[in-house]
Amino acid sequence: MTTPIQVVQWGLGAMGSGMARLLRQKDGIEIVAAFDRDANKIGQDLGAFLGGEKNGVLIQAPPLTEADGPEAGRPAGKWPQRADLVLLATSSFTREVAPQIKEALRQGLNVISIAEEMAYPYAREEGLAREIDQEAGSRGVSVLGTGINPGFVLDTLVLALTGPCLEVKKIKATRINDLSPFGPTVMRTQGVGTTVDEFAAGLASGAIVGHVGFRESIHLIAKALGWRLERIEEQRSPIVAKVRRETPYVKVEPGQVAGCRHTAVGYVGGEAKIELIHPQQVLPQVEGAETGDYIEISGKPSLNLMIKPEIPGGLGTMAMAVNMIPQVLAARPGLLSMAELPLPSALLGDVREILKWRKGE
Amino acid sequence: MTTPIQVVQWGLGAMGSGMARLLRQKDGIEIVAAFDRDANKIGQDLGAFLGGEKNGVLIQAPPLTEADGPEAGRPAGKWPQRADLVLLATSSFTREVAPQIKEALRQGLNVISIAEEMAYPYAREEGLAREIDQEAGSRGVSVLGTGINPGFVLDTLVLALTGPCLEVKKIKATRINDLSPFGPTVMRTQGVGTTVDEFAAGLASGAIVGHVGFRESIHLIAKALGWRLERIEEQRSPIVAKVRRETPYVKVEPGQVAGCRHTAVGYVGGEAKIELIHPQQVLPQVEGAETGDYIEISGKPSLNLMIKPEIPGGLGTMAMAVNMIPQVLAARPGLLSMAELPLPSALLGDVREILKWRKGE
Repeated sequence: MTTPIQVVQWGLGAMGSGMARLLRQKDGIEIVAAFDRDANKIGQDLGAFLGGEKNGVLIQAPPLTEADGPEAGRPAGKWPQRADLVLLATSSFTREVAPQIKEALRQGLNVISIAEEMAYPYAREEGLAREIDQEAGSRGVSVLGTGINPGFVLDTLVLALTGPCLEVKKIKATRINDLSPFGPTVMRTQGVGTTVDEFAAGLASGAIVGHVGFRESIHLIAKALGWRLERIEEQRSPIVAKVRRETPYVKVEPGQVAGCRHTAVGYVGGEAKIELIHPQQVLPQVEGAETGDYIEISGKPSLNLMIKPEIPGGLGTMAMAVNMIPQVLAARPGLLSMAELPLPSALLGDVREILKWRKGE
Repeated sequence: MTTPIQVVQWGLGAMGSGMARLLRQKDGIEIVAAFDRDANKIGQDLGAFLGGEKNGVLIQAPPLTEADGPEAGRPAGKWPQRADLVLLATSSFTREVAPQIKEALRQGLNVISIAEEMAYPYAREEGLAREIDQEAGSRGVSVLGTGINPGFVLDTLVLALTGPCLEVKKIKATRINDLSPFGPTVMRTQGVGTTVDEFAAGLASGAIVGHVGFRESIHLIAKALGWRLERIEEQRSPIVAKVRRETPYVKVEPGQVAGCRHTAVGYVGGEAKIELIHPQQVLPQVEGAETGDYIEISGKPSLNLMIKPEIPGGLGTMAMAVNMIPQVLAARPGLLSMAELPLPSALLGDVREILKWRKGE
């Protein structure tokens, strides 16, 4: 059979490591290089680092990018002689990943990023999005941003559910999840365990951010449907606990904040057409809220979809990034979104064969 | 602005008429020819026939195909001078639509068919599927089979739900619908109102068929996931009414048959991996069954999706066929399936702009 599909794993945090482990379980695909900026990881054998057998790939510092400037003195990783695609798990923000993506494109590699803003970078960084699209187009390769949300629940799945609709008047989608498995960083950015006053101050200072991805999801939905989006209104408010909620990482007393209720509404023709709701908190079930993903399409026909409990965020993001590899390798060149590629599906056989089928060979 | 996208509507039964009405409501798209074999329709103005304003397009007999033989004497419709795509709503079976599709391809037109077997024609008619793929490829146009089921609920949506999965052990999907809106033909093919003995005889003679589409859905799911399908086992059994069920078209007494419970199981590696269940009956709710579409993925993570009530079959099929037009016009040439094209989404703006975006222009 032909050479395995060759992947570069850039970023070995919780998400990147999970993606790398998943890649190692698939047939017809292999990791040929791995980059991370953590000095403790650099130099380790990737396979051993992932908790498995050694695979002879040593973790390197990231390669130089335009963000390093012309006289970067830092140790820099070397690109492999041959590869097909980079899986990028380094940051949530287009500004931070754009130099990494452009460098990968210059190497002639396709890119899948889990940066939330890359799900539809035209929403916030139109200039960078155009640069990436042009660079990818001129190199004949493709770039995709994906993940569970943005990337699937509040955009891809919403759009798919409008497929059987003759008309759509309004879209409302809600993701109610439980942050219990997450550690201190997530608790801090969602304001879990703060007082109501601290929460307000955290919002004002930007320390409490809520969900990153609403703008991307709403812009992508509107673009694919052909709606002219006029504006987006976002609201963040504290979810105040009525009863004690305790996880391994945080204790929330009654009256304290259990999380951030974040909503965003997209307006079209002066009407609220796309309403996305994503309260993120610890243990919503102790106060009777059922975790789940909920989509309501008001139209002809009206449709109600539920996934209970919600699709797990961490596993879902890892899976989406890896499972979209054949779709990206078979795609037209340029910067693409989930709405422009074939639907995601799990990789349960030899990935080379799945790719061949997707290419129509 | 550029010329509208030009569509030929072939088939003006309940589905085809609905598709044509929907097309007339969309911006940037127009019907330039319409074919139907019903002598009562031929010669009528299409717009008036659809219950709206005249549009100057006269309904014609279908154009000649290879199925007519070399010396067909029948009146034959003429193809328009220019068109982009044919919407085909004439039959459920690949054997019957293949000559029509091939003729459209020879005219250089893309094709969307709602024939159930065309959702994945390789499942039953590999030879014809290959011929269509080659003809489409050589003409530089694309062919898609779609609809609500097969085409969406028990295949496209199932596949999409495996996108966030690292592993999938088993798939089970159930569509419980209510046949009450349907007339005598559907009652007959599902055995509604028969005795248990008549039902058995109907199955044996082929008069009672159950659902057409299981083989297509299972083959498509397996292909996209990379599973090697070994065999499919189908079962049809009578749904016996415990209480009286009455619709405008049929009366079912207790002890009579209210519909056909049809299931299909796809085996991979000796295991039942894909289980599809589609009981079709009148008024399931009177005996406590909730209509809906249900998908269970057993894997990592396991996922449970519900759409309640079920997506309406008729409206869903019309919408899917029309909404996939931009995806098909932007696709690579050849015979394609829903799993190889971007996910379906409603057309709510100018279809020319949506197409331009899908083409990356």
